Amino acid sequence: MKEAEMEIAIALFDRVTALDAIGPYEVLSRLPRANVTFVAAQAGVQRTDTGRLGLTADAAFAELPHPGIVLIPGGGGTDELLDDGPILEWIRTAHETSAWTASVCTGSLVLGAAGILEGKRATSHWLALEQLHAFGAEPTAERVVFDGKIVTAAGVSAGIDMALRLAAEIAGERVAQAIQLGIEYDPQPPWDAGSPATAPAEVVQALRERSRFVLSG
Amino acid sequence: MKEAEMEIAIALFDRVTALDAIGPYEVLSRLPRANVTFVAAQAGVQRTDTGRLGLTADAAFAELPHPGIVLIPGGGGTDELLDDGPILEWIRTAHETSAWTASVCTGSLVLGAAGILEGKRATSHWLALEQLHAFGAEPTAERVVFDGKIVTAAGVSAGIDMALRLAAEIAGERVAQAIQLGIEYDPQPPWDAGSPATAPAEVVQALRERSRFVLSG
Repeated sequence: MKEAEMEIAIALFDRVTALDAIGPYEVLSRLPRANVTFVAAQAGVQRTDTGRLGLTADAAFAELPHPGIVLIPGGGGTDELLDDGPILEWIRTAHETSAWTASVCTGSLVLGAAGILEGKRATSHWLALEQLHAFGAEPTAERVVFDGKIVTAAGVSAGIDMALRLAAEIAGERVAQAIQLGIEYDPQPPWDAGSPATAPAEVVQALRERSRFVLSG
Repeated sequence: MKEAEMEIAIALFDRVTALDAIGPYEVLSRLPRANVTFVAAQAGVQRTDTGRLGLTADAAFAELPHPGIVLIPGGGGTDELLDDGPILEWIRTAHETSAWTASVCTGSLVLGAAGILEGKRATSHWLALEQLHAFGAEPTAERVVFDGKIVTAAGVSAGIDMALRLAAEIAGERVAQAIQLGIEYDPQPPWDAGSPATAPAEVVQALRERSRFVLSG
């Protein structure tokens, strides 16, 4: 008997952060029998938060009500998703039957708004972490947080680390390591500046101040 | 006087690897006065190597003959770009006036085919590295290789590290560190399996065998 495909639905919306979606896509699409579909309220092109790129959603949420993996990326556009709407309905329904429900960056706020983070440990972009309290979640300053079948990743690039761990849960370590080697994920960041705990204080402060405008909500 | 914008052109083509393009995009689009445009032989949607995602090119190569940064991602589709064609013409012309000419993964083979890697140190995906010899380049097994204004990155995810180093060259370390913190690039890969030098031998072997089919050319 042929093993079933794993349907993976990655949500898109206006002003999504591209890497939040593409990091996990690049890992999870390489799983054996994975079938990734980008979905949105309606099928069609969604523009990213910089306005400089269009990503195509091939299906509407309604066409994939029960994916095995639900993945919600973040971005400036998540603010507008926090009121009840098609994406929150879709998340609630899909989460009832999903094997994994995942988010990257401020995508966890959308999971929270859908009501599925009550009492759960979860992470988000470091600048948005405290906003998780509003949804009854327990903000957890870790790069990847598993709580049952809910998996949340920290800001933007953390989706790659999350997806590799998820790949190992689904297909085993050897398969996940082959994916890591395939995307040559041997990171060599030029500085230890990717976390507020290690970045130069003036850099952290500058981003905190800018975020009062950018991340208000 | 207002400082000039930095025009950044990222090439797309059929069967591009999404993360090759999106990693650098996510970093470079955050540079002050950066103006990223995705370009292709013709404007319109290009499908990635998995077939599961469409990325929109907003302009044709001919519309951006002289960007400040030229960036060529890799992917299965690069094989078909190695014969003379619109992208090779565009690279040759753009490289004459660019501040930086860059590639990720097998994108360096396309730079080579355009004839601009003669005598240059360059890198590529580890499985494609030796193919650089065919273009007179000196294959260099490093994650990011600068040779004058030509910058090449190793496989897929290496574009993020490359773009951060390029951002520092363009706008200084503090700006690049702020971008790193903004995308929370504090990588925590679950295994040390992202390089053929450190991955389990059986995983390296499996990928080498599979690549005889996938990367032939």
